[in-house]
Formats: sequence, C-alpha cells, structure tokens
Amino acid sequence: MSKISVLPPSGFRDFTPEESAARNFLIERISEIYLSHGFQAIAMPFLENLATLEGKGGGAGNEKLIFKVLKRGEALTRSLEAGAANLADMGMRFDLTLPLARYYSRFKQQLPKPFKVFQIGPVWRADSPQKGRYREFYQCDVDILGSREIGAEADCMAAILKVFSSLQVENVELHLNDRRLLAALKDSDLSEAQWAEALVTLDKLDKVERAGVEEELTAKFGRVPEGIRLVLDGASLEKLMTIESESVSSLKSLVEVLTAAIPGAKVQFNPSLVRGQDYYTGTIFELRHPDLSGSLGGGGRYNRLLEVFGGEEVPAFGGSIGFERLFLLLQEKADKLNVSSTPHVFLPLFSAEMRAPLMKLALEMRAAGLRVDIYPDAAKLKNQFKYADDRKIPYTVIIGGDELASGVVKLKSMAERSEEAVPVNELVHRLVQLSLKSK
Amino acid sequence: MSKISVLPPSGFRDFTPEESAARNFLIERISEIYLSHGFQAIAMPFLENLATLEGKGGGAGNEKLIFKVLKRGEALTRSLEAGAANLADMGMRFDLTLPLARYYSRFKQQLPKPFKVFQIGPVWRADSPQKGRYREFYQCDVDILGSREIGAEADCMAAILKVFSSLQVENVELHLNDRRLLAALKDSDLSEAQWAEALVTLDKLDKVERAGVEEELTAKFGRVPEGIRLVLDGASLEKLMTIESESVSSLKSLVEVLTAAIPGAKVQFNPSLVRGQDYYTGTIFELRHPDLSGSLGGGGRYNRLLEVFGGEEVPAFGGSIGFERLFLLLQEKADKLNVSSTPHVFLPLFSAEMRAPLMKLALEMRAAGLRVDIYPDAAKLKNQFKYADDRKIPYTVIIGGDELASGVVKLKSMAERSEEAVPVNELVHRLVQLSLKSK
Repeated sequence: MSKISVLPPSGFRDFTPEESAARNFLIERISEIYLSHGFQAIAMPFLENLATLEGKGGGAGNEKLIFKVLKRGEALTRSLEAGAANLADMGMRFDLTLPLARYYSRFKQQLPKPFKVFQIGPVWRADSPQKGRYREFYQCDVDILGSREIGAEADCMAAILKVFSSLQVENVELHLNDRRLLAALKDSDLSEAQWAEALVTLDKLDKVERAGVEEELTAKFGRVPEGIRLVLDGASLEKLMTIESESVSSLKSLVEVLTAAIPGAKVQFNPSLVRGQDYYTGTIFELRHPDLSGSLGGGGRYNRLLEVFGGEEVPAFGGSIGFERLFLLLQEKADKLNVSSTPHVFLPLFSAEMRAPLMKLALEMRAAGLRVDIYPDAAKLKNQFKYADDRKIPYTVIIGGDELASGVVKLKSMAERSEEAVPVNELVHRLVQLSLKSK
Repeated sequence: MSKISVLPPSGFRDFTPEESAARNFLIERISEIYLSHGFQAIAMPFLENLATLEGKGGGAGNEKLIFKVLKRGEALTRSLEAGAANLADMGMRFDLTLPLARYYSRFKQQLPKPFKVFQIGPVWRADSPQKGRYREFYQCDVDILGSREIGAEADCMAAILKVFSSLQVENVELHLNDRRLLAALKDSDLSEAQWAEALVTLDKLDKVERAGVEEELTAKFGRVPEGIRLVLDGASLEKLMTIESESVSSLKSLVEVLTAAIPGAKVQFNPSLVRGQDYYTGTIFELRHPDLSGSLGGGGRYNRLLEVFGGEEVPAFGGSIGFERLFLLLQEKADKLNVSSTPHVFLPLFSAEMRAPLMKLALEMRAAGLRVDIYPDAAKLKNQFKYADDRKIPYTVIIGGDELASGVVKLKSMAERSEEAVPVNELVHRLVQLSLKSK
C-alpha cells in the first residue's frame, strides 16, 4: 500500500484532546452567555448554493475566497462539455451573516419580531495560509433582525462584552463608528468609488499610521481629502454633529448607554474605524485588545443585506467574536482555559473475569457524575498504571478477585501518592467527595 | 437586484431555534456520556486532502460520494489545461473514522495507549437526497485504538448503549457478528470476490427476507452457498464454534460480558449481520430499534485501516450513533427532547431612557443564572407583549420610570396570568425562586 500523508490540508488544523476540551468549553461558555442575553441558537448547512454566496451579500471580496464544491455526474460532464464554465454548484460558507440573511428571508413569517439569534460554527476562506490565519475557523455571531433602534446595538455589544469579562479578558476596547458619518464626510468632488478607495486607505491607519495614510491618499488624489483630515485630527462627536447629526446622536447615545450599563466597559468613538464589509449601512464596531494587533471581533448594522433575497428592507444588526483569536489569547493565559476532560477514576483490569464486575461498578460511579475509565485489556499492570499516569487520572481503584471477595478495595490518589482501604459499598460516596474536593 | 433563492442546497437543512436547541442538547448529552466512560474529544478539519479520502480507507463505496472541492487559481488553470483531470484537491469528509486513522497515525507517539476517543460532528455524502437521507448529517463516534481484546468492544458498546438508556430510548437491540466468522463460512469453490458478493446479498435479509436472499444467490451462483444456508438456518454460536473458534469464543464472551454488566441490555448474536465497510476485520455490531427500519448505529473492528498511512497494524475498534435517526426518534416522542432555550424573563422597554437601567438590572439577573431578554426598541407595548408571548417567555417584569422611582416593580407570570408587586432589591431572588420552580 502506498503511504498517504498524515497531515491535514494546508491551512487546516487537527486539535489535541486538551485543545478540543478547551475549545468545546469556550463554545459552551459563549453559548451560555448569548442564551442568558435572550438570543436563540439556529443552525444552517455548512455549504450553500453558489448563487447564495456569490450574490450581492458577500462584501469585502470574501466571495473571491469561496471554496467551491465541484459538480457531480452528468452536471459536471455538461459543464466540461460547455467549456469548463460553472464547474461548481455549491460553496463552503465564508461567514455566518449571509446564510442568516437567507434563513431569515425564508422563515420570517414564523419568527419572533425582532429575531434575536446566535450562531457558533466554522466558516471557510481560501486565503493563503499564514501564522494565525486559517482556512477553517470559528465565528460566534449574535444578530438582531427586525429592530431599528440602538437597542439592538446595545444588546449585541453587551452580550459580546460579557463573553470577554466572564472569561476575565480585561482591557477589551470597544471602538464605535457609523457608516453614515463616513459617507457624509465625503469631499464633494470625489466620486463614490473614489471615496470608498479613500476609506480603504484610512482603514490602514493602525498599520501605517497617519503619515502612511496621508502619503497614500496624496499619491491617489493629489491631496488628503478634507473629510479624512478631519478624522485624522481626531474630530470629536460634538464637532461632527454639524456634519451628520443622525448618526452622531446615535453614536453619542450608544456610548452613554453602554458606559452607564456595563461596569468597566471601555467604549470609545473612533472616527477612523471603517471595517471591510460592503453591506454595512450604519453603526459599525470593533473589539480591540492591547496584546493583539488586529481585532477580537466586530460587526455592524446591515439594513439592506436581506434585499438580496427579494424581500423588503429589514433592519438588522450583528456582531461576531473572532473565536480563534480569543482562543489564542486565552491559551496564552493558560489558567483561563483550565478545563479537563480527564476521567476522575481509573479501574485497572486484573483479569478478563473482572470485566463485567468492573463495568457494573463503573455504571454506579458514572450515575453519580464521575468520569470512569476501565482499562480495556488485562495487560501488564505496569502498562496500565503508565496509561493512568499519561492521562493524569487522579484516582485509581484496585479491584482484583481478592478485593471483590473481601468487599474492600484500595483507593490510590495520584497527587498525594497515598492509598486507603474503602469498603466497596462506600466507594462511590468517597469518590464523589474526593473528586469534588480536587476541582 | 435579482432575487436569490431562500432555500439551502438540495439535501441540506436549516434548523429552527427549537430544533437547534434540541440538537445542541442531544450533542451535549452524548458528549457527557462519552466523557463519563473515559473517552476524550478530539477535532479534525471538516475537509481532508482528496488523497486521504480516496485512499484504501473508504470502503463501502463511500469514496464515490465525496463532495470534492474545486482547485483554485493557477492549480485549477493547470488542471483545465491538462484536459480537466484532477480538478479537485480536497473533499468533505464522509465519515469520522478515516480522519481519525490519519490523526492517530500523525500523533501516535504522544497519545495515551490505548487511545480512547470520541468525535461528534457533521459528515457529507453526495447521495441522492430522499426522505430521511441528507447530504450533511452528524455522526457520534467512539473509538479505542491500540487495544486488541474485547474490552475495547465492551467499552465502546457500553457507552453507546448508555446514550440510549439515558435518553429513555427503550428496546434498542445490539446485534453482534464477526467478519472472521463470515470469512470462514466461505464455500471453498467460491472466490473471495464471489463470497463478498454473496455477503452483500445476505446483508439484504432484513429487506427481502429469506426467500429473496435465496433467489438472488441462486441467480448468481446456481445455488445457495452452504455457508449462507447455515446462517439462514440461524446457526447457534455452539454450532459455529467448530468452523471458526476464535471469533466465536470472542462473540460468546462479548454477549456474556455485556449481558452481565449492563442491566436490561438486549444483546444478541446475529450471524446474518454483514455491514458495509470494507475495512472491518473482526467484531461488527449494529443497533436496531423495533420502530425503525435500518439501524440506529453500529461499528466494528478495523485493525488494518491505519496501514493506509504507512504505519504498522494498529488494533482498533469503534462505533457510531446515527445522530439523525436518534434525533428523529426522540422528536417523535416530544417529551424526550423537552429542552428550552427560551429566556426566563422579559423586560419591556418603556422609553429610551430606561435602556441603561434595564441593562444594569439584567446584568444582575444574568449573574444569578437567569436568561433575560430586553426588548431592543421602545416600541408599542402591544407589540412588545406579543413578542414575549411568541417567544413563550414565562415572566415579564414591568419597570417604567414610576417603578424605578418607587423601587417596586410588577412581576407578571404568563402561565398563571397573575401579577405581583416586588421590591426591586428582592426581584432577582424572587425570579430565581420562580424559574427554578417552573422547570
């Protein structure tokens, strides 16, 4: 047999048992918090029709990054005969927002209004893999569809901020801006397309600093447009009120509400915040952390995205936590992801005859909430104990034929390197005591 | 804008909030039970290199059902220029066993021996969609790699049976057989390939009954092969012992151990059980339920699968629960999936000024474990109450400016259509009391 590579595809990852336990813990924690804020989970396929993904919804060029699924059978043959056009019919979703827009358009008659929803799951992008950038990664979205006021903004952001505070990730900054304000800042002699280009340049402020932005703008337009200069000068909300009062009032209210309602929230207006997606129509936000370049998440209002699916305008707001970056941040502070999926108790197998009695005993222990591992083979005890050590199982119960006959077993603690004799009918109680203590 | 379909691709599904909550609950429940049996979770990508999926591991023709991912950029151009051969480089995984084999081969040096592992996640097959058969569905696998004895069998099957019993799915039958026995039953004048064909026919026994099997065999071979006749006659383990003693003794031990260790387990030797996968080398099993045709899950020993990845033989055993069929079965008995992700408490928003105070109050409630939903807009109260009704939120707390000033709020129960006055500083305590009671 020829040897096949043991590696996953480039840009994709395998996770160790420890990483998987930590990731599952994190997903569960985020779910709980989103639920506690009144959001409901929904689920959609991981694949969508290409027409859905390539519609006007993608934005930010993400539709260029779609992993496309090859047609099959006759459909493929026909496409090849027709000059290899349209070889694919489906694609991997590249975000969770566009599928949500399809979902809401499909079910809106039967959904509560507004619809408060969350999704945690993988998305795929055919980016060039590099350190910290993967082709398969998780997003954790909260969205409110059908609400026009800043309550939707406040609600989503509060839930997202709560995720960070509950995981003791301190110093998360919430940066706020509004696309309407950015639009209003356009110099009158620039076209819409030129202004979009200017904003793309402004968006690089973090990376290239003011001098870099000004240089690029001057190269493109022969000058730094007045609206951008205002932003670079750090114009205050008060000053900008005269330019676009609606978005600026809503930004002011948002900063006030979030600051008043969430103790310790670091909320700030940031006029240079642009964000990539084409589909944003109002408030945009981003979560930043001093220890990371780039963002921990973000989102915005996308009141027109649902028109893609033929319905009327639906006011919509949503945000997302960058799961992989949060995970990385927590991994670096190892104690923050201190979860264990290790069994509490190990039962070595002394002989094949002990298998059924041990399994029955394990049933009782498991019913009491303990995780119990029986060694599957009657192997050398040395190997069995090495296994328990490797898995860091804190307690081992020695039950051979003698112990079964006498009704008294030996209970060994790995941490304390101690051993005690316990009557078998008190064993479960004793173990529950011990493993609760060891937590 | 042209209208895009609101439907997912054919054979794929959207899930309602209720279905999603129930599916998440079920996944969590199965995880807990697998963990309690000493298995650890791991995770791998949802996509694999095509070489991995198309290696010798697939079996049962599943490699024909791979959704393939189109190459991109220059790689695609080159493939098209080369006559449109090898247009794809990756594929969606069609089961969880083959990726596990790759994973184990990659990490075996650092994994405990034996390696007890579980995976719950989606797989994809390009089957023709039909009622109850989807192109994206979940599997829930437990596997033990590196153990040769029937302890691995007993461990995996015990965990799987526990999932059913803990969900009160009664009457699950565990059917057992062994590929070595099936091989030993071969008539000496039939080739291996002919025998494989005969077994495929035998596998249809459930559908076409004895007469159908005999007819098909007679058409193929001019007779019913002696080994198949033995099976159709329902040969006992005792009788078969003379034909292949090793597998028959292990089947006998397995039936004994499982029957002794698991109260109420319905375990039976079934000599006509074949199962599809090519890669099975020993024990095979299947879970059946009187209310369903087909199986609720199954698995087997696959001691040679890991050789695909160039290593030596690794004894391996694993099984899987058919998540979608279990989910269907539980949905039909609605009370078995009675999970709610609905908020406990609804806070209508009387005016924009109330937003921050309500959010602060909600923080306290959430810290006490309550799920709390604030209406995002200061909309007509009628609409807000309709929303709370639609979501079936059991309690509503009325806090307007007056209530905030007086420090006494109104607490309404939806079920009892009652209302009580509660001092705001006692509210959290009262709600915790009530919502615990209402569970």
